[in-house]
Parts: sequence; structure tokens; C-alpha cells
Amino acid sequence: MKKNPFRTIPEAPKPLTFAVNRKVRFEEVDALGIVWHGRYPSYFEDVREALGDHYGIGYLDFFQAEVAAPLRQLHFDYLKPLCLREDLTIKAELHWSEAARLNLTYEIINDRGETTTSGYSIQMMVDLKDKSVLMVPPPFFQTFLKRWRENLLPDDPGNP
Amino acid sequence: MKKNPFRTIPEAPKPLTFAVNRKVRFEEVDALGIVWHGRYPSYFEDVREALGDHYGIGYLDFFQAEVAAPLRQLHFDYLKPLCLREDLTIKAELHWSEAARLNLTYEIINDRGETTTSGYSIQMMVDLKDKSVLMVPPPFFQTFLKRWRENLLPDDPGNP
Amino acid sequence: MKKNPFRTIPEAPKPLTFAVNRKVRFEEVDALGIVWHGRYPSYFEDVREALGDHYGIGYLDFFQAEVAAPLRQLHFDYLKPLCLREDLTIKAELHWSEAARLNLTYEIINDRGETTTSGYSIQMMVDLKDKSVLMVPPPFFQTFLKRWRENLLPDDPGNP
Amino acid sequence: MKKNPFRTIPEAPKPLTFAVNRKVRFEEVDALGIVWHGRYPSYFEDVREALGDHYGIGYLDFFQAEVAAPLRQLHFDYLKPLCLREDLTIKAELHWSEAARLNLTYEIINDRGETTTSGYSIQMMVDLKDKSVLMVPPPFFQTFLKRWRENLLPDDPGNP
Repeated sequence: MKKNPFRTIPEAPKPLTFAVNRKVRFEEVDALGIVWHGRYPSYFEDVREALGDHYGIGYLDFFQAEVAAPLRQLHFDYLKPLCLREDLTIKAELHWSEAARLNLTYEIINDRGETTTSGYSIQMMVDLKDKSVLMVPPPFFQTFLKRWRENLLPDDPGNP
Repeated sequence: MKKNPFRTIPEAPKPLTFAVNRKVRFEEVDALGIVWHGRYPSYFEDVREALGDHYGIGYLDFFQAEVAAPLRQLHFDYLKPLCLREDLTIKAELHWSEAARLNLTYEIINDRGETTTSGYSIQMMVDLKDKSVLMVPPPFFQTFLKRWRENLLPDDPGNP
Repeated sequence: MKKNPFRTIPEAPKPLTFAVNRKVRFEEVDALGIVWHGRYPSYFEDVREALGDHYGIGYLDFFQAEVAAPLRQLHFDYLKPLCLREDLTIKAELHWSEAARLNLTYEIINDRGETTTSGYSIQMMVDLKDKSVLMVPPPFFQTFLKRWRENLLPDDPGNP
Repeated sequence: MKKNPFRTIPEAPKPLTFAVNRKVRFEEVDALGIVWHGRYPSYFEDVREALGDHYGIGYLDFFQAEVAAPLRQLHFDYLKPLCLREDLTIKAELHWSEAARLNLTYEIINDRGETTTSGYSIQMMVDLKDKSVLMVPPPFFQTFLKRWRENLLPDDPGNP
């Protein structure tokens, strides 16, 4: 992924990567026979959830810590259309940040190996009890960052 | 609406009616240029919510009574397709029942006055605190039934 | 599947079966924490498409024959709720008919082996060129029926 | 709308504005009780379609010219959450460009007058016959630009 909208952090650990596969559904395609642009949040969410589950920072990990991670920004670059029944691979990279946020970039690859879509998202962390924005990540996330820094996280299993 | 799947109750008050208008959205249409069958739950929900709000048995009325009214059955008869940008009227009838349930029939009319779709739904009432199914309606709903019986409810304002 | 709304046909071949797995997505869950009833058309469509592809009567087989198979009826019985991240198996049975239609029943099973949802659909066959309803199935479908009758179709591979 | 990601064009006519109203639907809200971020493409599309229809550059105007205008970029800034049943106003501004593209900015306002969301989209124009990207806008759009420049377009009718 060439396009990284995030500030470069010196000596940051390498991004964490993950990928999922999906097939374009009939219901996702519009009157022009291509995936309607508004279906792509679901594509990005699929890989974001899978990445989170794999590295121990998934939806339920946040929920147990009484923290939510709503989106603050979401961006799509539609480079090529996706068509009915097309097989696609959705890749994500989580970029290092010690702030109470999650910075991800995304790439969708079709079955001819072409990048059809790229994008990024920024999530902030919010206390589920009082809805306040967190200034520092919750303890479980700080442990995750420490393990990332020390290279102790599970490997990316590669394209499923 | 000819098709009424519900048991006829002798001396029941007449059904309560309501209608809303809506235009077919680009995102609702499939590769064949017609509304994908799976969008219709939203069409029925629009009129069900509006009918509930109008007669004082809306989502928030139930919520305040700590009762939910999830669907137990939902049925669609697709008679004619709906096309891009078509204007449609969605009509609903609430049928009399003293049980802890809501029995509705629906009809979608296109701008040429044709019935394109009909259907029905059955909702049961559930206690939000312990998720148990209610045997009798909550007090606010019993008051509503009494007012329905006594013909004290607001009129159907007619097609908006 | 106990509930079969279709007329019993004497000496009909046994139904064709198929199943797919799916996980409840965050975007499918409503404010009460359960899957919104209007997401289920997608669940049924997933298994209907997979069954069609497996037995040679999928969307693309119909498209090549210039025939569409839009839904004429769709019915849901919601027996138990589905929750966030739940794993589910969606089963379908295609019931024998020599008419230009497809009669399916469905069942959704949660990861505790409980049936949460059942339902059925009826599709008619439509000529894509002039939108007329077909009285007899197209040749490829008649060949399919012959192979079904003669027990020459691929086996159900079983729960994936 | 403060945030305008587009290059300033000297002596460009003022942006064209339009607004639509909408109410948050039950089906749009997630398990946290707020609108799921992936529903917002529909919100932006509502106002984009209405703006296009009002100024004579709607979906059907493009379709008649055998041109489509798919999205090339889409961006969301989620500033505040939207909740169940909230009334919202969705505003759009079309920014002047003589290229074969549409540059829009968006703003969602809640019923307390707060901006909850902003964003932008870039659409390119594509020949529907051969799928090639247009270098210059089609004749009907050039006429529209001329009328915009000469201040001959219909007024923004104001918040409906």
C-alpha cells in the first residue's frame, strides 16, 4: 500500500497486516452491474474485525474494557469497479501509534491481482460508561502495544 | 387489502390504517434494474413505525414500557417489480387482537395505482428486562386497545 | 425442516439440500443487540446462490439462458434471536417441481444446534428479453430436472 | 462548510447548494445505539441525487447522455454520533470545475443545529457505451456549466 495518510513515526514497529477473502454478492451490485460505492464500508469492516480478533484488539476485547472505538475518519479511493460474483481479497495494515486511536490503511485486490480500491480509517477510543474520549489507551491496549514493540504478537497467517 | 392471514374476530373494531410515501433509491435497485427483494423489510418498517407513532404505540412507547416487539413472522408477495426512482405508497393495516402481539398487513402501491407488493407481519411482545415473552400486553397498550374499541384514537390523516 | 408449505407431489425425487456457514456481522445487529429482521433475506440468498451454483442452476446459468428467477413469495419465521458474532449455518432444500418455478425451504441453525429461523421462498422464471413469465422451464433447467429424477446430480458435500 | 479539499479556482462561480431532510431509521442504528458509520454513503447520496435533479444534472440526465458518474473518492469526518429517530438535515455544495468530474462537499446537521458529519466526494464521468473515462463533459453538462457561469440556474429552494 503506497498511500499512507498517517504521520511517519521514527523507529515505529512495522505495520500489522491481515487479509480476508470475500465474494461480491448479488445484493451489493447496482443497476450498472458494479458494486455500489456505499457497500465498501462493509468490506473494510470485515478485515478490520478479523485483524482485531487476530491480534487481541477486537470488538469484544474493547467491549470487555468498556471502551468503544468508533470511526472518526473514513476514506475511499475507488480505482476500478468490482463486478458480480468477483472474488476479492481485502487487506489491512494497522499503523503504529501510542495515542488512543487506531490508524488503518486498506487495499482491495481482485482475482486478477489488481488493486481496485484503497482507503484508510481513523478510530478514536471512547469510554462506554460516560462517552468521553480517551486520552490514553486502556491497559489491555497498552499491553498490546508493548507486545507489538517487542515483536511478541502472532504472525500474519497470510492470505487465507 | 384482500389478503388477511389473520383469524377473523367477531365484533372486532375496524383495522387501523396508515400510509407513507417513499421513492425508490439508486442503492435499492439490483443488476436487473428492479428493487432487490431484500430491501422490502425497510419499506414495511417505514409504515409500521409511522403507524405506531401516529396511534401512540410506536417504538419509543414500547421502549418506555420496557417492552420490545420483535417480529415473529414476516411475509412478502411480490406481484410486480419496483423500478429506479419510482414513487410508491406503502399502506399498513393493524388488525384487532387483545393478545400481546401486533398483526399487520401491508400493501405497496406504485404511481400508476397498481398494487406491486403485499404482505403481513406478526410481532410478539417481549419484556426487555428478562427477555420473557409477555402473555398480556403492557398497561399502555391495554389503554390503547380500550381507546381503539371506544373509537377514541386519532383519525388516519390519509395519504400524505 | 418440518414446515413445508408446498404441495406434496407423489413419487417426487427427494429434495436437494445445501448449507453454508456465516458469522453475524456488527453491521447486521440492531440497537437491541440482535440481528435486525430485515437482514435475513441476505442469509437466505447466500445459501440459495450456493445451492444453485452447486447443482448447475445458479444465477449465471439462468443469465446465460436469458432467464431471471425473481422472488414471488418470501416468508420468515423468527423463532429465536441471532446475536453479535454468532456462528450460524444456513440450510436450504429445493423441492421438486416441474413447473417454471423454484420452491425452497430454509433453516438457520445457531452454534448450539438450535433452529433460530425457518422460512420459504417461491421464485418464478421470467424471460429476460420480453419480461414475460415462462410457462415451462428453459431447456437447461429441463435437463437439470431429468438428471435430478435420474439421480445424476452431484451429492450435497455436507456442512462446510 | 469550512473543509473544502478542492483546489480554489479564481473567478469560479459560487458553489451550488442543496439540502434534504431525513430521520434516522431503526435499521441504521448499531448495537451501541448510534448510526453505524457504513450507513452514511446513503445520507450523502440522498442529497447528491436531489441536488442533481434540481439543477438538471441528475442520474437520469446523465443516463440519457449515456454517461455515468461513478465515485472516484469518498471521505467522511464523523464529528458527533447520530442517534435513533434523530431528525437530520443533509447539505451539499457542488464546487465549480470545468473538467469531466463532480466535486461535492457535504455536511450533516442534527436537530440542535450541530454539524455531526462532514465529507466530500469526487465523481468522474464515464462513457456508458465503452466504459472509457471522459476527458470533457458531455454537451448537456457543458450547457449546465454555461448557465451556472451566467447565473441562470434555479435558486436553492432552501431547507425543505
